[in-house]
Amino acid sequence: LSALRVRYRLRPAAGEDAGRRAAHLAREQTIEIAEGAADPEVERRAIGRVAEVAPDGAGRFAVTIDYPLAAIGGDLLQLLNVLWGNVSLQAGVRVESIEWPRELLERLPGPAFGVEGVRELCRAHGRPLTATALKPLGLSSRELARRAAECALGGIDLVKDDHGLGDQEWAPFRERVLTVADLVERANRSTGGACLYAPNLTGSADRIAERLETLAEAGVRAALVAPALVGLDALRALAETSGLVLLAHPAFAGSLAGGEHGLAPELLFGDLFRLAGADAVVFPNAGGRFPWSYDDCRAIERRLGAALGGKPGSFLMLGGGVDRARLAEWVPRYGPDTIWLVGGSLYARADLRAAAREMAEAVSRTPPGRAAGEAVA
Amino acid sequence: LSALRVRYRLRPAAGEDAGRRAAHLAREQTIEIAEGAADPEVERRAIGRVAEVAPDGAGRFAVTIDYPLAAIGGDLLQLLNVLWGNVSLQAGVRVESIEWPRELLERLPGPAFGVEGVRELCRAHGRPLTATALKPLGLSSRELARRAAECALGGIDLVKDDHGLGDQEWAPFRERVLTVADLVERANRSTGGACLYAPNLTGSADRIAERLETLAEAGVRAALVAPALVGLDALRALAETSGLVLLAHPAFAGSLAGGEHGLAPELLFGDLFRLAGADAVVFPNAGGRFPWSYDDCRAIERRLGAALGGKPGSFLMLGGGVDRARLAEWVPRYGPDTIWLVGGSLYARADLRAAAREMAEAVSRTPPGRAAGEAVA
Repeated sequence: LSALRVRYRLRPAAGEDAGRRAAHLAREQTIEIAEGAADPEVERRAIGRVAEVAPDGAGRFAVTIDYPLAAIGGDLLQLLNVLWGNVSLQAGVRVESIEWPRELLERLPGPAFGVEGVRELCRAHGRPLTATALKPLGLSSRELARRAAECALGGIDLVKDDHGLGDQEWAPFRERVLTVADLVERANRSTGGACLYAPNLTGSADRIAERLETLAEAGVRAALVAPALVGLDALRALAETSGLVLLAHPAFAGSLAGGEHGLAPELLFGDLFRLAGADAVVFPNAGGRFPWSYDDCRAIERRLGAALGGKPGSFLMLGGGVDRARLAEWVPRYGPDTIWLVGGSLYARADLRAAAREMAEAVSRTPPGRAAGEAVA
Repeated sequence: LSALRVRYRLRPAAGEDAGRRAAHLAREQTIEIAEGAADPEVERRAIGRVAEVAPDGAGRFAVTIDYPLAAIGGDLLQLLNVLWGNVSLQAGVRVESIEWPRELLERLPGPAFGVEGVRELCRAHGRPLTATALKPLGLSSRELARRAAECALGGIDLVKDDHGLGDQEWAPFRERVLTVADLVERANRSTGGACLYAPNLTGSADRIAERLETLAEAGVRAALVAPALVGLDALRALAETSGLVLLAHPAFAGSLAGGEHGLAPELLFGDLFRLAGADAVVFPNAGGRFPWSYDDCRAIERRLGAALGGKPGSFLMLGGGVDRARLAEWVPRYGPDTIWLVGGSLYARADLRAAAREMAEAVSRTPPGRAAGEAVA
């Protein structure tokens, strides 16, 4: 492949011809100039080429467009521009999937650790992992650290900041990171465990370097980042240079995905987050506080584990209202490369350490199901 | 005001109580933990408070929530998190407007130049400005520069890179910026004019500094940036430190705005882009290649010019298929603080300089209408 092949589901407006709309799309995302206004030679080398337009039921069409790789030029943001730049401002276009050419995959880092690297760090093999989010916003650094330590002592694999913890006065970034990291480290020494703490790195563009220094000072090996807030390329840069395990949070990204107009969730939270360098992708499980379906979640799981030019796979980190009492029911419905993120329902219990231990044990003793897309034996 | 007051239009799911949904929203965007699971004192200080829920017709409700400023902590990304972080992953929520407290306005830069500053640089007072986008992708730096020079010689006020021009082999970033800037500068010397060239700065997070150096070397005073690609806080950082006139492009931002679930376009492209530092905001005019209405465009114009804690106003830069032949019809429908961005229909003409001159003259001689929201005399 020397082109980026993109598959769409298109719903033309009333009276609009699907083939014509597809041709406009291929033009809008590249040369952005009306037919006949550009030199034919320039058009030939830079414009997207419609490869297929086929009815797909209920007024929709499956459209395939091949974009010249040279139009992207190896930059992740220019890739996003070709995928969803101007067309984001139109209607009725859903980007379903991408056939990734090797040349482009080689330019994108993918996860620095991936599933196996994270398992090594957490010393957790052959089973799903467990995680909690430090919350609620409004607690002091000391109380958040106490909660983190109790979870680590109970055997939880990862403790992450809630994505809403920034640099608020109640638990300022530097104080929180140092305090929580210290107590988690002490808990690890006492249990011989390897609980990973992931502070929320999301914040001002010009203070990332300062925050990374704080993480290094605290001996922290992981971080949480919301790519739709900091920009997906900031995740890419962190994956290439930070040496941290990166958990990607979907905050602010929801309206980009799903529906009749947007990116397919498995493309955004699967392929794109993974290729930009997420070692794990946080996503709300079906049946919690968010309206995503089990099929959506499985489709993301499939893309996080799919063969993709030899890139490591990423964990799917399922949260958004997972009740610890229902883990035994949920764990078998996903493969082993999942992280179960339980927050509120742990904290609702007075003895947090016991709640964490029960959760870790429930996940350990429940055999996971097959990974999405894994062949039936 | 010591709170951030946010107004929503909510469409609850079938059978869902609007008051209960509003309370969930206020909770989800702050403490993210179920009722009863947090210390009441912590809830009191950190949670959003529902101030009003009123029926708004057709199964919708007008909801007002006050968020404690301390939950935001002065960080633009944490503000976006509170506004649209997790709720972006739900459905039926439209953020209509924000009442900005002075404390928060003081933390956000707003435009470094604004309408008056850009007018000074372009030496263009009391009239709308004119602009073109260098395109199509696929042309050489030399040919793009020739086009820029012809437009400058014809009297166009601003020449910007098309937002799809990145670092492609046909016109690599550094070569393009130096070549175009040189020819625009020569054109300015020959006419005594002050055409501003704005290269597209959107690109890899870790190469922004290098790109800024190239702009400085080229003597360039302006840049184009797509906040939804680089992250809105990257625009904020540029506004505070770059010394450049910043044109914000809406690429990749469309699916965040409009519709039943998202931010109101005038909130995103008006308040937020302006407060983050856009001196001008590019938006597709009604009646072009994009489905936005004249009312949407006027609402954005209104917010770009509204009183907002003494911040300078920003230009609305109308493009997306504005036909130069229809300028005389469109110019009176907006106020004077607009920039008319014409691309394809200029290049369709063989004598580009003459086309540019006619466009500049058409805009100069057509009296603009009233700014949106300006009182009728």
